[in-house]
Amino acid sequence: MDFSPSSKAREHVDRVGSFIEREIAPVEGDYLRELLALPAEDRWRVLPVIDELKAKARAAGLWNLFLPDHSGLSNVDYAPVAELMGRSFIASEVFNCNAPDSGNMEVLHQYGSDEQKQRYLRPLLDGEIRSAFCMTEPDIASSDATTMAATAVVDGDEVVVNGSKWFSTGIGHPRCEVILFMGLTYPDGERYRRHSIVAVPRHAPGVTVERMLPVMGRHDEPYGHGQVRFDNVRLPVSAFVAGPGRGFEIGQNRLGPGRIHHCMRLIGLAEAALEAACRRGVERIAFGKPLVNLGGNRERIAEARMAIDQARLLVLHAAWLLDTQGILGALSPVSQIKAVVPAMAQNVIDMAMQMHGGAGLSDDFPLAGAWTVARALRLADGPDEVHRGVVARLELGKYGMTR
Amino acid sequence: MDFSPSSKAREHVDRVGSFIEREIAPVEGDYLRELLALPAEDRWRVLPVIDELKAKARAAGLWNLFLPDHSGLSNVDYAPVAELMGRSFIASEVFNCNAPDSGNMEVLHQYGSDEQKQRYLRPLLDGEIRSAFCMTEPDIASSDATTMAATAVVDGDEVVVNGSKWFSTGIGHPRCEVILFMGLTYPDGERYRRHSIVAVPRHAPGVTVERMLPVMGRHDEPYGHGQVRFDNVRLPVSAFVAGPGRGFEIGQNRLGPGRIHHCMRLIGLAEAALEAACRRGVERIAFGKPLVNLGGNRERIAEARMAIDQARLLVLHAAWLLDTQGILGALSPVSQIKAVVPAMAQNVIDMAMQMHGGAGLSDDFPLAGAWTVARALRLADGPDEVHRGVVARLELGKYGMTR
Amino acid sequence: MDFSPSSKAREHVDRVGSFIEREIAPVEGDYLRELLALPAEDRWRVLPVIDELKAKARAAGLWNLFLPDHSGLSNVDYAPVAELMGRSFIASEVFNCNAPDSGNMEVLHQYGSDEQKQRYLRPLLDGEIRSAFCMTEPDIASSDATTMAATAVVDGDEVVVNGSKWFSTGIGHPRCEVILFMGLTYPDGERYRRHSIVAVPRHAPGVTVERMLPVMGRHDEPYGHGQVRFDNVRLPVSAFVAGPGRGFEIGQNRLGPGRIHHCMRLIGLAEAALEAACRRGVERIAFGKPLVNLGGNRERIAEARMAIDQARLLVLHAAWLLDTQGILGALSPVSQIKAVVPAMAQNVIDMAMQMHGGAGLSDDFPLAGAWTVARALRLADGPDEVHRGVVARLELGKYGMTR
Amino acid sequence: MDFSPSSKAREHVDRVGSFIEREIAPVEGDYLRELLALPAEDRWRVLPVIDELKAKARAAGLWNLFLPDHSGLSNVDYAPVAELMGRSFIASEVFNCNAPDSGNMEVLHQYGSDEQKQRYLRPLLDGEIRSAFCMTEPDIASSDATTMAATAVVDGDEVVVNGSKWFSTGIGHPRCEVILFMGLTYPDGERYRRHSIVAVPRHAPGVTVERMLPVMGRHDEPYGHGQVRFDNVRLPVSAFVAGPGRGFEIGQNRLGPGRIHHCMRLIGLAEAALEAACRRGVERIAFGKPLVNLGGNRERIAEARMAIDQARLLVLHAAWLLDTQGILGALSPVSQIKAVVPAMAQNVIDMAMQMHGGAGLSDDFPLAGAWTVARALRLADGPDEVHRGVVARLELGKYGMTR
Repeated sequence: MDFSPSSKAREHVDRVGSFIEREIAPVEGDYLRELLALPAEDRWRVLPVIDELKAKARAAGLWNLFLPDHSGLSNVDYAPVAELMGRSFIASEVFNCNAPDSGNMEVLHQYGSDEQKQRYLRPLLDGEIRSAFCMTEPDIASSDATTMAATAVVDGDEVVVNGSKWFSTGIGHPRCEVILFMGLTYPDGERYRRHSIVAVPRHAPGVTVERMLPVMGRHDEPYGHGQVRFDNVRLPVSAFVAGPGRGFEIGQNRLGPGRIHHCMRLIGLAEAALEAACRRGVERIAFGKPLVNLGGNRERIAEARMAIDQARLLVLHAAWLLDTQGILGALSPVSQIKAVVPAMAQNVIDMAMQMHGGAGLSDDFPLAGAWTVARALRLADGPDEVHRGVVARLELGKYGMTR
Repeated sequence: MDFSPSSKAREHVDRVGSFIEREIAPVEGDYLRELLALPAEDRWRVLPVIDELKAKARAAGLWNLFLPDHSGLSNVDYAPVAELMGRSFIASEVFNCNAPDSGNMEVLHQYGSDEQKQRYLRPLLDGEIRSAFCMTEPDIASSDATTMAATAVVDGDEVVVNGSKWFSTGIGHPRCEVILFMGLTYPDGERYRRHSIVAVPRHAPGVTVERMLPVMGRHDEPYGHGQVRFDNVRLPVSAFVAGPGRGFEIGQNRLGPGRIHHCMRLIGLAEAALEAACRRGVERIAFGKPLVNLGGNRERIAEARMAIDQARLLVLHAAWLLDTQGILGALSPVSQIKAVVPAMAQNVIDMAMQMHGGAGLSDDFPLAGAWTVARALRLADGPDEVHRGVVARLELGKYGMTR
Repeated sequence: MDFSPSSKAREHVDRVGSFIEREIAPVEGDYLRELLALPAEDRWRVLPVIDELKAKARAAGLWNLFLPDHSGLSNVDYAPVAELMGRSFIASEVFNCNAPDSGNMEVLHQYGSDEQKQRYLRPLLDGEIRSAFCMTEPDIASSDATTMAATAVVDGDEVVVNGSKWFSTGIGHPRCEVILFMGLTYPDGERYRRHSIVAVPRHAPGVTVERMLPVMGRHDEPYGHGQVRFDNVRLPVSAFVAGPGRGFEIGQNRLGPGRIHHCMRLIGLAEAALEAACRRGVERIAFGKPLVNLGGNRERIAEARMAIDQARLLVLHAAWLLDTQGILGALSPVSQIKAVVPAMAQNVIDMAMQMHGGAGLSDDFPLAGAWTVARALRLADGPDEVHRGVVARLELGKYGMTR
Repeated sequence: MDFSPSSKAREHVDRVGSFIEREIAPVEGDYLRELLALPAEDRWRVLPVIDELKAKARAAGLWNLFLPDHSGLSNVDYAPVAELMGRSFIASEVFNCNAPDSGNMEVLHQYGSDEQKQRYLRPLLDGEIRSAFCMTEPDIASSDATTMAATAVVDGDEVVVNGSKWFSTGIGHPRCEVILFMGLTYPDGERYRRHSIVAVPRHAPGVTVERMLPVMGRHDEPYGHGQVRFDNVRLPVSAFVAGPGRGFEIGQNRLGPGRIHHCMRLIGLAEAALEAACRRGVERIAFGKPLVNLGGNRERIAEARMAIDQARLLVLHAAWLLDTQGILGALSPVSQIKAVVPAMAQNVIDMAMQMHGGAGLSDDFPLAGAWTVARALRLADGPDEVHRGVVARLELGKYGMTR
């Protein structure tokens, strides 16, 4: 049970940390202000500073670190790097490690055909295009994948894609060029062989972004979360990723590292919120005392510290299991972190907002935005309740309970 | 301890309820969609439907019900009316009972000069103009009023107003014509006689709205929360409300009913969220069952029901004390409800959002907006922690603790 | 919704309060110490002070106040009386208002034959004998009454009682003379007409108290909670209370007021714990400050105050519904209070114990004993979870969910 | 950050585990029943089975494993061993690893004179005598050590010990032969050099055990928690451990490993409670379903699993810091685990009790006893609140807050 990052990883942690400190932190606030100052409809663009930062990061070799075959970093190694990136709203993009592109790159790297790698993976790895993942549907409870209505039907040498998807993150990005679409291919097939993933060009005929969905009132430009209609989108069967019926398998493999990444970024976000709460609580005076010395504020600081530290260790443990035993040895831990970390981050950030008074709800501090990220992740990729259900099922399985 | 509304009040409850059902509910969704579909900078306007609804409500005599001298309703009587209004985002305005105008009207009614009543109160009661209340400041912890930096200094027969205020709700409204401004007049005066309230015309020279502040990413158009600079705003001394040095007294009296109103509206919001959670949980199917039959969802429904019912009774009890003993007999209960109700509403709404999946975070349901209202009220008019401090101080006072 | 006790009730509150203050409080500590100083096996006795206090209470007319037909007090009236009694471990007995005797007396009063009234109810009302209620069974989940295994079978003009019951409170009392026993009579009857209640003499042949069960290590002498075996106990059919098949109906009617009583006593217990916490927190000094001024202690005091006040109002509301609409109009509230109040009391007492340091866990203060009372009531008469289930079922019923 | 136990430690884990399974588990229930069946005053004895088990454990080399110099096990190594022991109420004693003897042995091993080692440490290590630690006092808030009233004054070549101590665990044991007593020696000395530890023979003239204190109604025989008076107990100055004024230093060093041990044992207790909850929930049927499939029970099982796993990792992390950086590098983590683990264990056990219904509160299952252990540890060695205060102080220190 060794959670220490390798020496190579430690070096990356140091370099990523100082890159963020030197290059990103000084400009991030201005970037966000500049973006938000634009009329809402004009925010779907890449401001020049982002491309400049990406170029610098790539030149520094701090690029695609999430991909083990590229970076040589295990999940345990990458975890502290992801935590650092999570402290910033733009760092993941700057280092080309942002969701959903990172997960999509993993899928294409592991399962993509040469053509798919050439057409999509290469420019994604180069940070030239962006991508989306279309899974969740508006009319069903998407946590139960068996109810999925979208279809990817084989018709001769074509695949025909139909359905309505939403909360498709990244679909609003001006450079979004490819969609990984999950749909039903074999309705009567074996339970875990029914679905397929299809690589759909963003601008293929029949693909319509019907609207961009706000999350807690925000659109998260320039990525965004869209509702997308697929109307008889016809593609050659070579558009299947790994062939028809492999959707579940691919999804399963995508989830483990993805959850580690999400959770470590949230740990970083929670750490940043705790730091903000401490700073505010030490500096701001009321009733003649620093805020932290009023009421239960110190105990809340301590609770936050203890919650973060426990959550981080839980994620590192899950990462270590994933590295050493694969996803099947980490099923419970990977659901545990998904149930624990977003809720923990939401609570810590809520505490930090409260410590800031009204300012904490404004955009003068990054707390309100951070809260929305954490809140959304209590639903994205399965609600807390479903993950607790998985943890319980695996626990009760030890005592002979089969479902 | 009789919390039953009077027969007159019950009639108002019925009539307000059916007005909301018949007139407001059918158009509210469209109104919100129409407003949000406007470019952000164009939302600071009153859409025609609002004026139409106001005219109907006034014609029906459902107007200014919050004001006892006008409606004959006690706090206990008005409470269930406010709860009904709280279920809608626009009903309070339609019935001319919305914050901060209602509180400002109370102040002007109780303390205003004839001139102030003529110039401001009359058109406010008629729903023709709107108002703002400028109290909180960006550079201090506003829960400690003794640190207030803004000033309202007497200079001959003029009062000179200076300072920076923020989270001034309503300042963005196109019809906002008057600001009740709180400032320091006698820095060395007796503790509770130092501050004054001044009625400042919104467009007086020296009044500048520097920016509108988002709350959790939303601007709450067309009211909004502004940061306002007052630069040597000179007004005749008749602009003082009730004379210099009466600010604290007025503020204190404004708070009791105001908290009852806020809290009852939040009870209504929480009820609406619970109702939405139940409906969604009954209708939506996953894993072959209605959502409510999965995991702990039923217990969460029960917890919400019990939390709401307890909170409502606590507010009614506070209202009854306020009616029968005045604010001095209701100090602890009035702080209790402020600490209990917004947090309760936030939790119930969060549960309802979770039951809705991603949709709960979007604006397809009014939950995300409702959450923001509840969250903001955990800070507005004093953070939870300060109110808990007041409750503790009054409790410990029974055992000889003087502070 | 008038929760004010009647003037008669207010007079009783005053008189019960001063009786407790003058007669009970000064001797209760000594009584408990004297009892606990006895060897464990010798504690199953009535110490003289109890009989002396009972005689005084009866002489003062403060006797059997729980029984509306006797005292003229409604549930709303009796509630504050019960709260006062709940502050003491012995007051309920002194006023002949203790569980399970009070519930048993209600049953016999309402459903008993003349013979049963003569033989059991009269001496119970006189405080001369005590009783037990045998419902819960060791081998089944008793919250699901349909699984009850004990039987009360009609055999000619006799009823034959068999089964094993436990947590039969009061069975250890030296004066326990009658058991109300619940058993299955018509296994194939209509769901709510299958069970019967039988009045079984404590010393009837075939009744064996197998052991007394500790609750959190305590035996609650001289009442105790016993495991009781019934082996072919034969009684004339006149031993049925209200005839065979009426068990469910009687149990249902017994529950409403019983829960009000239990919950109001717990409110009293929680109030006493909060008072103890405040006193300790004000008096005890650490790090140069009264304990209440350390960390989050003040906020915890406030949380306790707000939780108690909300819970009390919820119980009063349930009592008012029970008085005005009967049990069928109070089903949800009566389950709500059962789910809310014991858990609330447990938390408040736990906080008070913590404020007392190690002393809080000892018997130098009544907190540890009080905690056990509250904890036990989270299970007695149905676990919290079952009551939340009832509340949820009734809530969801509003939206068409039938189970 | 390697939390893996060494291969030697893994071997010990296996052997301790199978010893518990083969030798202790089969007899523990009978032992506890036999002890509790004795009249309360006769339980202060060592039943033969304990000595038999100790002899076997010693013969097997599973003895004094807590002492690194003896066992060669680091804190990280010993942690899983302690967890296993924590699942049983008697295993720690059987392996001679029980508190407070283990801590006292550590002190004597590290700081004792040759004479003290010969007289006390040797027979303690042999399991022939037992000991007590007298620190907490009844009349002060002991979490603030500066208020300690007991004294250990040098008078010529003697030390004179005076004071009243309580919650002196182990003092009731029939073989208790030595007390480590903490008292004030230099009231005007430097803050951390004022107190001393004196090794006081249990039966020295002037030592009186005034009473044994119940903890939540239990006496924890044959160890017990006593109130002890020291009246002019005169001993040669050689009775000081490490000399006068070293008390704080010794106490500090004793705490780190002691907290690891306590917390790991509680982790074991919580695991055992979760296991019991799962077994009961799977086996017991109500409303036609296993209990775990009712209401929120599965989510509660999951919450328990996630809380335990997080807490264990936090303790292992603290142990690893203690091993690699010493107590000064582990101050916050060592306070964190003290604040987190007992509360976590209390909650998990409470859940397990609830899943067992009334039986969970009885002594038919070890849950009620386990709950008391966890509850007591929320106060023993500093209340949760004090430890949260330490964590907050260290956290805020990063931002320049000096106290």
